[in-house]
Amino acid sequence: MRAFIAVDIGGTQIRVAVFPEQSAIPIVQQRIRTVAEGQTAVERMIGLIEKLWPKETQVDSIGIAAPGFLDPKTGVVVTAPNIAGWVNLPIAEIIRKRFNVPVYLGNDANLAALGEWHFGAGRGYSDIIYITVSTGIGGGLIAGGHLVEGAHGMAGELGHVMAEPGGPLCGCGKRGHLEAVASGTAIAHYMADKIESGAPTVFPKGSRPNAKETALAAQQGDALSIEAFDRAGFYLGRAVADFLHILNPELIIFGGGVSLSGDTILAPMKRSLEDHVISKEYLKDLTITRTVLGDDSGLMGAYALMLSKLEKS
Amino acid sequence: MRAFIAVDIGGTQIRVAVFPEQSAIPIVQQRIRTVAEGQTAVERMIGLIEKLWPKETQVDSIGIAAPGFLDPKTGVVVTAPNIAGWVNLPIAEIIRKRFNVPVYLGNDANLAALGEWHFGAGRGYSDIIYITVSTGIGGGLIAGGHLVEGAHGMAGELGHVMAEPGGPLCGCGKRGHLEAVASGTAIAHYMADKIESGAPTVFPKGSRPNAKETALAAQQGDALSIEAFDRAGFYLGRAVADFLHILNPELIIFGGGVSLSGDTILAPMKRSLEDHVISKEYLKDLTITRTVLGDDSGLMGAYALMLSKLEKS
Repeated sequence: MRAFIAVDIGGTQIRVAVFPEQSAIPIVQQRIRTVAEGQTAVERMIGLIEKLWPKETQVDSIGIAAPGFLDPKTGVVVTAPNIAGWVNLPIAEIIRKRFNVPVYLGNDANLAALGEWHFGAGRGYSDIIYITVSTGIGGGLIAGGHLVEGAHGMAGELGHVMAEPGGPLCGCGKRGHLEAVASGTAIAHYMADKIESGAPTVFPKGSRPNAKETALAAQQGDALSIEAFDRAGFYLGRAVADFLHILNPELIIFGGGVSLSGDTILAPMKRSLEDHVISKEYLKDLTITRTVLGDDSGLMGAYALMLSKLEKS
Repeated sequence: MRAFIAVDIGGTQIRVAVFPEQSAIPIVQQRIRTVAEGQTAVERMIGLIEKLWPKETQVDSIGIAAPGFLDPKTGVVVTAPNIAGWVNLPIAEIIRKRFNVPVYLGNDANLAALGEWHFGAGRGYSDIIYITVSTGIGGGLIAGGHLVEGAHGMAGELGHVMAEPGGPLCGCGKRGHLEAVASGTAIAHYMADKIESGAPTVFPKGSRPNAKETALAAQQGDALSIEAFDRAGFYLGRAVADFLHILNPELIIFGGGVSLSGDTILAPMKRSLEDHVISKEYLKDLTITRTVLGDDSGLMGAYALMLSKLEKS
């Protein structure tokens, strides 16, 4: 019997899980904060892997889901904006040298798609778009039964397609991207601006509700909050129409905090999608659903990545 | 020895070529007009296949590249706007029943991408976007060494992504699609409007230059013609930036009549692309080139489709 060590590293926390062969239930898992005084994120990650390293089972490989731009072929993180010092970091090589087992690296959103496909909402489908809508917007693609990572692992940046030319500033520094008009951050910005300008709402003047608070208010009938989600859903649906024209998937999985608001975001998204597709054929056998794995999707994707390498070897 | 019969059917002409095994040079090929009095397009296609049917060689299969929405899995053309009567047409079954060999069907732009990948500009690459810019805009995708057709063969409709919300009417009936602002038709419309409104140009008032004529005038320094191509190139580059963010290809192949104008369209496209990518990493190893197969790409793609089925069986 062999074990597989899955790692999901983000700006806030590092998660490690040890999976036995042929089971989706980890033997052991733990999460720690990414940032701590006197230790780098890499040191903390190595420390947690050491702590959970199985004593009596051979480790097959380590799979790592990481944020930002990274190249799965070289195992190098080019930039990870949320983790200090992660620039051109050969993380796969560092971990391989330390533990002496094969190390596989993937982008967290791409691996979330892989995780949902193997273990979650995507089981049995071949053409899937996974879209995570939280503070930012990311994505992962399965096309014809293959994970689409692109030439250098930078595919699936669905938050950075043009949604409204000349529109609000995006986290990436460009204007009008989908993330700038439809993410949780975009919803919060829209609310703050409207509250500031005196639009009628349950929120007091000067307040800055986040997307979750706005969703709750929308569900209780607050007109401005409904408008904020309708606007985000409109842009999301128009972008999803483009994704359908490009990729013709049979399944769209929504993940991320904003998707937890359910129909508050998904109903206007679907209306907009129906308005913008060039043919109803794209919607005929299309399923739109939400993540099954939730926060575990990246970790499960790192595990699925190791299993896929196994199949190829 | 076996032979492979490739068919490329369009609104104007039907082309049939017979390929020997392991050669990209056809034994025989011929083209006829799609439309003729007293015969349907299907009858004309069958007639041409019969005429070229090899007498002393066994036929392995027939591969068909066709326009419009079609499902490669069922072999049914759902709609082909340019061919009268092609609605829910089970073309693969019709041809298979007539000739008693396996028949494979693919969208012409998707198969053009496959053709370029196997025999043309895409040889040796794994992640390719093929974009054809002529009267309309179409596309085909290779991701991770696999042709992306989508769940029902409708992937790669790159002309119908949103380029300018509220912009000019597209051939599909929606507004502001890439095809409506960057195709040859869009360039011609832009010229006609500007000439009508009295913009200075070498073209006389009331004239309606097509994209080819406009390209020649641009190359001779006509400011309005340069402006028309700069505008098309701007939109094309911005859309290509989105395609890079979604698919991270290593190669982009431009085909279609408008791409024959070379740098007249590609130089403004590249400037816009550089302005719109979120990271220079997307451009680092990116090659931008033009089709090698030209008009033969669909036919060669139909041949490549048959070869790919051979590999799988």
